Amino acid sequence: MEPAARVALVGVGLIGSSIARAVRAAMPGVRISATDSDPGVRARVAELSLADAVCETAAEAARDADLVILCTPLSAYAEVADSIAPALAPGAVVSDVGSAKGCVMGLRARLPEGVHLVPAHPVAGTERSGPDAGFAALFRNRWCILTPPEGTDPAAVARVASFWERLGAMVEVMDAAHHDLVLAVTSHVPHLIAYSIVGTASDIENVASGEVIKYSAGGFRDFTRIAASDPTMWRDIFLANRAAVLEVLGRVTEDLAALQRAIRWGDGELLFRRFASSRAIRRAIIEAGQDTPAPDFGRSREES
Amino acid sequence: MEPAARVALVGVGLIGSSIARAVRAAMPGVRISATDSDPGVRARVAELSLADAVCETAAEAARDADLVILCTPLSAYAEVADSIAPALAPGAVVSDVGSAKGCVMGLRARLPEGVHLVPAHPVAGTERSGPDAGFAALFRNRWCILTPPEGTDPAAVARVASFWERLGAMVEVMDAAHHDLVLAVTSHVPHLIAYSIVGTASDIENVASGEVIKYSAGGFRDFTRIAASDPTMWRDIFLANRAAVLEVLGRVTEDLAALQRAIRWGDGELLFRRFASSRAIRRAIIEAGQDTPAPDFGRSREES
Repeated sequence: MEPAARVALVGVGLIGSSIARAVRAAMPGVRISATDSDPGVRARVAELSLADAVCETAAEAARDADLVILCTPLSAYAEVADSIAPALAPGAVVSDVGSAKGCVMGLRARLPEGVHLVPAHPVAGTERSGPDAGFAALFRNRWCILTPPEGTDPAAVARVASFWERLGAMVEVMDAAHHDLVLAVTSHVPHLIAYSIVGTASDIENVASGEVIKYSAGGFRDFTRIAASDPTMWRDIFLANRAAVLEVLGRVTEDLAALQRAIRWGDGELLFRRFASSRAIRRAIIEAGQDTPAPDFGRSREES
Repeated sequence: MEPAARVALVGVGLIGSSIARAVRAAMPGVRISATDSDPGVRARVAELSLADAVCETAAEAARDADLVILCTPLSAYAEVADSIAPALAPGAVVSDVGSAKGCVMGLRARLPEGVHLVPAHPVAGTERSGPDAGFAALFRNRWCILTPPEGTDPAAVARVASFWERLGAMVEVMDAAHHDLVLAVTSHVPHLIAYSIVGTASDIENVASGEVIKYSAGGFRDFTRIAASDPTMWRDIFLANRAAVLEVLGRVTEDLAALQRAIRWGDGELLFRRFASSRAIRRAIIEAGQDTPAPDFGRSREES
């Protein structure tokens, strides 16, 4: 049996459209309804045949669905939850794909009794946005973290876990607070720093922005890639995961200050020690299959 | 006529071995002599047939060469210059591939009259090291910056420019101080931050290092890639380009503090504005051909 018979996608950007494509590929019998607040996106979803029904409202898309997945920026969640609540049948599962999870717990109170809330976060993505950017293999060999509130029906959690496994992901369950700290380290603060340094580089008076662009192959372009991600989505993540982001950011600037001091005082030994230890971490990431040593950066495999 | 008849490579890591391969491919008539302080590397260079002569000392490799290229870490330059000086014929050109250029100017005084110093910096690389990591197309469509000291013979500069163009690079000439500022922005500070954040992530008590590795696809792995670069090379770069690195780093931490404050006070509008403007810079880098929009990160083209 499929983990869901009728899936509703609210928001069809990179992640929503990748789910649609992956469901089509892995579970062709599942009916997909989809909506997006942008009429242009809805038209494109219809053109690309990403859903069986393209609906004008979230409530319409959610009606009769047994799994509703919020794929909008975090700031739209409360409004979406309020609008779909009356349309949900008992036993339906509401899930999402947001990169911060503590803030999702509040949805519980907005949903009717008998409807299950199982927040999820597939740790996968590219810097591209919109329904054309998605691809079916995006979640393959990637982790999907579930953060069900205490007391959630284990059968509902199992259904969502099974859904993501069918899309090729590996599933982990943890509490929302721990998720938010781990992701602050591995995703949110790296993105913030990338955004920041790209802004700084374009502001330095004695370096023309043309030069920054010309010589970006020296390292800078790695930062611009993640700094090209959707600005609305990221604004919402930072506001939603404020405490953990500020905590980790404090550590990062502290450690950076130590390297800065080593450069100022010519402490080559400290610099060498720090730089050498980061190689081991890189090696472990490659061994864990979350990247490859090939200079294509593991990307070719993702799309295959 | 070839820009050089006999090329000597002192140091055969990623860059030195890429030059050897690219010279073989583009200028098969050129004789290559090579040396490395590591006997294991010398043996590997011979096995890979990267040079016509593998020499035990830099002086031996440089004898009769009309173009000697230093491809060692910056801290070895002075010693190498002293040892090759007696072996150099008048009219020979000494160049290098280092990522900081102000410090290279000092070599002028260590070289005999009639020998030309034309420092060079090919802005290209991967995070891998050693003679096996190189490939002939590494410099193709990448910039190579020359920083000849004032008064350098224009014919010597033209020969080095032509050499790099034959390897597929585009050549730019600028003064060393400007080079060092531009590269601090586009390469050195991004690497320092990547090294720093990788270290921070592995130190946070409530997050297991296994978790950092597992969920690295959320952005962190982009940082680990550049933080996997050679530690000796990077230690030398930071010590050699101290002033510009500290200047740019000051700007970066200042701008990061502004974003930190916006997160703390919930200023979503400022965050959105900053994030949105970085997209334009990313687009310009893609248009300039220094990366591609494809999720393979432009890497597949580099090796082709």
